[in-house]
This record gives sequence, structure tokens and C-alpha cells, in this order.
Amino acid sequence: MDRTSPTSITRPIGFRAAGSTCGIKPSGKPDLALIVSDTPCTAAGVFTTNKVKGAPVLVSQKHVRNGKARAIVCNSGTSNVATGEQGLRDAEAMCQTTAAALGLRYPSEVLVASTGVIGHRLPMDKVLPGIEQLAPTLAQGKKADNAAADAILTTDLVRKTALRTVTLGGKTITLGGICKGSGMIAPNMATMLAFITTDVAIDSKPLKLALRAATSETFNRLSVDSDKSTSDSVMVLANGQAKNRAITGPGRVFDRFVETLTDLCRDLSEQLIWDGEGVTRIMRVRVSGAASVKDADRVGRSVVDSPLVKTALHGADPNWGRIAMAAGKSDAKLKKDTLSIRIAGMSIYEHGQPTKLGLKPPAKLAKAMAAKEVQIEVDLGLGKASAEWLGCDLTREYIHINADYTT
Amino acid sequence: MDRTSPTSITRPIGFRAAGSTCGIKPSGKPDLALIVSDTPCTAAGVFTTNKVKGAPVLVSQKHVRNGKARAIVCNSGTSNVATGEQGLRDAEAMCQTTAAALGLRYPSEVLVASTGVIGHRLPMDKVLPGIEQLAPTLAQGKKADNAAADAILTTDLVRKTALRTVTLGGKTITLGGICKGSGMIAPNMATMLAFITTDVAIDSKPLKLALRAATSETFNRLSVDSDKSTSDSVMVLANGQAKNRAITGPGRVFDRFVETLTDLCRDLSEQLIWDGEGVTRIMRVRVSGAASVKDADRVGRSVVDSPLVKTALHGADPNWGRIAMAAGKSDAKLKKDTLSIRIAGMSIYEHGQPTKLGLKPPAKLAKAMAAKEVQIEVDLGLGKASAEWLGCDLTREYIHINADYTT
Repeated sequence: MDRTSPTSITRPIGFRAAGSTCGIKPSGKPDLALIVSDTPCTAAGVFTTNKVKGAPVLVSQKHVRNGKARAIVCNSGTSNVATGEQGLRDAEAMCQTTAAALGLRYPSEVLVASTGVIGHRLPMDKVLPGIEQLAPTLAQGKKADNAAADAILTTDLVRKTALRTVTLGGKTITLGGICKGSGMIAPNMATMLAFITTDVAIDSKPLKLALRAATSETFNRLSVDSDKSTSDSVMVLANGQAKNRAITGPGRVFDRFVETLTDLCRDLSEQLIWDGEGVTRIMRVRVSGAASVKDADRVGRSVVDSPLVKTALHGADPNWGRIAMAAGKSDAKLKKDTLSIRIAGMSIYEHGQPTKLGLKPPAKLAKAMAAKEVQIEVDLGLGKASAEWLGCDLTREYIHINADYTT
Repeated sequence: MDRTSPTSITRPIGFRAAGSTCGIKPSGKPDLALIVSDTPCTAAGVFTTNKVKGAPVLVSQKHVRNGKARAIVCNSGTSNVATGEQGLRDAEAMCQTTAAALGLRYPSEVLVASTGVIGHRLPMDKVLPGIEQLAPTLAQGKKADNAAADAILTTDLVRKTALRTVTLGGKTITLGGICKGSGMIAPNMATMLAFITTDVAIDSKPLKLALRAATSETFNRLSVDSDKSTSDSVMVLANGQAKNRAITGPGRVFDRFVETLTDLCRDLSEQLIWDGEGVTRIMRVRVSGAASVKDADRVGRSVVDSPLVKTALHGADPNWGRIAMAAGKSDAKLKKDTLSIRIAGMSIYEHGQPTKLGLKPPAKLAKAMAAKEVQIEVDLGLGKASAEWLGCDLTREYIHINADYTT
């Protein structure tokens, strides 16, 4: 896998992109993006599990059901969530206008995503003309990649892109991805959007399986603030232009593709957590010894979501008891007498007993807690399942950003 | 019910209390409290559901199992949690020394609680002599009440006491209570301790039922920061000195007692949320129309724990979409099309459609969000179950307090 290429979303063969300002955001920042394949694609999506789903999520779920799509239209600034029947009509209208502007036969060939404030109607008098004006500017190359990547951001501070190539059956396959954060980020698709293009030839069923496998180990195991957005969507378009022998099911080639897709998603995930709202340092929580992967996930999530662990991380405070508290409050099977905790490789709690380091945390532990990335290991000592989670600190800046967002 | 009496924990007949500084806290603030009945009591306790329980919790659970106890000893400053076998020996030693100092026959007549930093051993060379010196100072009256109430505090800013009287079978029954917060406060007994004395005559089984009923509607329905402490304990001692005909089971008198106990616990709960770490305003979240009380609780908890709802409350931001998001992310049965939301009595989202007020939040909605207490109603429109939760805002001060606690 090559990780060093400079641009992303239009590097796979046969994709074009565009991004611009149609006027949704009062700031005048870019707010409309288009990603299009020149030829038909297999497509897959993974969407928020929140029961209050945004209209674009409902529409995209419907459009992707047949495993086919060719374009993605996305606006930022307003999420088109909790907007009732009107919201559904607006999301459908975005697909219709995009299809018409691109000369596609069916609006269902278009997937749609919106991100931003909840509960406001989209300014359709800006969005629809915006799409018509944007379509003729679709292009390949760095400028187009960056324009699309910028137009999907909300409170994000930096653009997030990733690129991977892999050789499958003698053909070079390229995958490009862009994503946005940066608050309301939690397991099972928090406020995040990720769009992935690839020129691999793959059937829709294995593409769906591959996307599920990749997201479950990456986007679904990170949390900025434990809130789960109503808009989260990860979408992939695969147009087959790399001319590999099509992947039709399980096997070595499929596994290699999943591995590459997972690696791309992990890259985007890490960019996403680092750009979490107000984040100054991150934690990588490795849970092992769990009775099941589900239990490992419960403990991982509980630790990265705990406000007291997050503030201890922020304060570089080796107050490891909070990690024990957070592990213990989860629903996972857990016995105090088999629980062990390590920070930055230092054992501080072993089988329910504090170690010498735990009883009197030394300066080197405080120093380790002050690193940009802190490694926390929680060994439940009960089984063989494990999971790795990414979390971040909770800061005054997070509160500043979120106490003053709409008004 | 009379709510206006001036002191609390020694107002029921036959109780004495004391509080002092034995030297656990570097600050020199009070850190040791004793509450004792002159005569044997029925007793009950409700304890944290965290799987990493503090040693004092394990010891008190054992001591209260027979429904009898006579004294409570509590220290603040160090929680004696995650301290292994040594921690259990230390908690037992506190009970033994207390029993000896009070002339009680069995250490199991003493319940014990500790609150403060996790993972440090108690300084027993200070705690045990402290208990011996404190016992002779046990007294009745305001000074003793306040000394005990002060000695159980950690980062709390204010003392929390409550008093209720009720007439049962022609006898005046008095209940006194003290509690401490103020972070790591969440459902199912977060870092909170509450000690309740009463002179009611009641058997141990109905006392236990009464305490469970009262806590499930009060302490278990508030959350400062979603973290669930390893030490939470609510304990009640009932010595029968009011000479009412003993409550032995269900009935009108039992119900009246439960009602009074619940009212006392609610009073303490509200003091607790107002003194939550860094709190500037609170939210009262009334969930109705749920398919079950469990579902109403899931939604209530999800809303009060959501960092984005909490920061919106802090910023007096009528960003009601975050309430819809928080309701939707819970595990409760919920349909978007039957969901309604009101803030301060104003309908902003009805049956899955935003109202005019919701689409363009007026100035009066922003003004209502800026109140000290904000009423939020979430109607799931599915059933008849309801629950009321208390939550608070998330502030920079919370982060300041918790980023710098141990070090």
C-alpha cells in the first residue's frame, strides 16, 4: 500500500469533483460539493444508527439499496435534520437537480448528504442553482480534490483527505477519501461524513461487506464527545475503471481490498480525532482480555467517553482511578480482581491491586500523560477479545465552540 | 410535610453526630464524620452499580445485609477505591475502631463510606486516631449537624442538608439527611454519598423497599457528568424512637413514609445538581409518552448526559435539534414521526415536524434558555410512561476542576 500520494478523491480513474460556495453559511465559506464518476458504479453506504435520522440519510439509504449510484452531492451549513416532510422533499430535489445537471437518467443514481445545524430548512433557492452552477466545473486533480474536501467541512479546522493504492490481480487499484468532523462524533457514525471513490471492479454485495468491515474497526471506534449525529454517512463509489477481474465474493483479493479500505478509513479517522473540537491530545485505548469483542467495545467506549478520563487527559493528570471507574461503569463483563491497567506501557494496576507505580505515580507517568498521544491499556483478564479505541481530551475550547454554535 | 426546619441529621430523636479534621486532605478542611443512634436501628443502603466498587462499599454492603446498623463513619479526601486487599482491611479497621470507640459490640453495626481520590491508600495513622478523638464529641443540634455535613464534602461548594417531618399514626416522624456531590455524578449512584437518619419505627424489609423507591426517583435520575462513581452510597438508619406503630409492610402508612423519604431525597438531589462541578444552570427534562419507564429513563439520561445539549444549555442556545439528536441516540423505542419537543412550555417540534417557533426560534425562546432552570419536555408519543430527570450545563469551570484534581 502506497500512502504518500498528494491528492485523493479524483485520483482513482474516471472520477471528477467540484466544490464551491452557494451561500448557505453566513461566513461565506465553501458549502457545496459534488463527486461524480464518468461511468456507472457499484455503491455502498453506512449510516447513523440514531433513530432521528436526517432527511438526506433516509434518501441516500433508499438510493443506495440497489447497490448502484454514480454521484454524491453534499452541502454543509445546514443538516436538513428534523425538518419533517419538507426536508425529505428538499433532499430529493437536490438529487433531481444533480441528476439533471449531470445528464443522469435517474435521481436515484445520486446520493446526498447534508451537515450543519439541525432543525433549519435548507435554503433551496441557493442550493439548487448552486448545484447547476457547480456541475459544469467538475474536474480532476488537486484543485478539484481540495475544493470538494473543503466544501463539506463545518467547524473542522483542517481538510481531511487520504489516498491508497494496492495491486490486485496485477492491476493498480486506487482509493481516495475525504471526510469531515468534528463534534457530535461518537461510535456508530457520529457527525461525520466520509466519501470514498475507487476504481476497483467489485460487485455491490462484497463492496457493502467491505465497507462495513472497514468502518467497524475505524470510524465506529472513535469518539470526540459521545454524541451520535443524525447525519453520519460513509459512502463509497466503485467504478471498475482499474479493469481488475471483478471481486465477486470472499477470498484473498477481497481480503486485500478490505485491508486497504480499512487502512484508508483509519487514516481518515485519525485525522478526524485530531481535528475534534478543541482537542489538544488524544488517547489510544487498547482493551484486551475481554470475554467478547462487544465487551471490549463497551469498555473502550466507556473509557474514551468518560468526562473525567477526558479531563484527566487534558490536565496530563495520572489519575488512573478514573480509568478503573470508567471501565467498571460499562455494561461489559468485568471482575475487579482480574482487571489490570497500563499507561504508556507502565503497569499501575494489576489484577485488582495497585502497583507501586499506581500507589505513588512517578514523574515519568505524569510526563507520559502529557504526550500528544497517550497509550492506555485495559486488560480485563477474562477472555481473548480485544478492541482499540481512539478518544481525545475535553477542553474549554470544546465548550466555547459548542456553547455558541447557532446563535 | 414540613420543609422549613433549620437543621437535619440529629433532629430525629436519639441521633448524635460529629465532624472534624483528621488530616487526610492537604487543605486541612474537615474530612471525618460520625453519625450514631443511641439505640439499635433498622438500616438499609443503596450502592453504586459500578463493577469496580470501593472497599467501603463492599464492607457496608456486607454489614447492612442483616438490615441492622447503628452508626455511620465517613471520611473524605481519599476514596479507598482500587486499593486491593489492603483497602478492605482498612475499611474494616474503620468500623472496628468506631465500634470500640462507641462501645458497640460488633463492628458490623457500623457502616462506612469514603470519598475522594481513587487508588490511594487511606492514611490509617490519621484516620483511626481521628475516629477515637471524634467519638467523645458526638452531640445533638445545629453545630453537630453542620460539622458532619461539612466533613463529607470534597469539591462541593456548599453544605447539603434536608429535613422533613410527617405524622404517621398520630406520631410525628422526623427525617434528616445530608449528602455530598459533586462530580462523577450520574444515574445509579454516582459520586454521591447521602446519609439519612429517622426516628420512624419500621422493619428492615419495608425500609429497604422505601429507600429503593425513593432513590430510583431522585438520586438515580440526575446526572452531572455521566460518570458513575465507585463509591456511591445512600444509607438510612431508622431507630424507632418516634414510637409509632412499626411499619411492617405495604399500606397507607408505608406509602406516606415513602412519599416523605422521596421528598427528602429530592430536596437533597436538587441541592446536589445545583452544586455540580462548574454548574451555572440546570435542566429539568420531563420525558412522557414512552412505551415503558425504562425507555423514559433512557431518553432522559441521554438528553441530560449529551455534551452538546449541556453546552447549548450553557450558551443559552435554543439549538433544540441537539435534544432531538440526544433522544434519538438512546436505546429507547422511538419514532421520529411521533416525537415532540417543548422548551419552557413552547412547542418547537410536533410529531416529527418543526413548528414555526422551531424553524425560527424567537427571542423569547433564547430568553427561556437563559433561565437558571430550563424545562425541557420530550414526548415520545408512543405510550404512557414518563420520567423526570435533572441535568446541568457543561462549563469551562468543570474542566478546570477536573483537569487539575489530584496533582
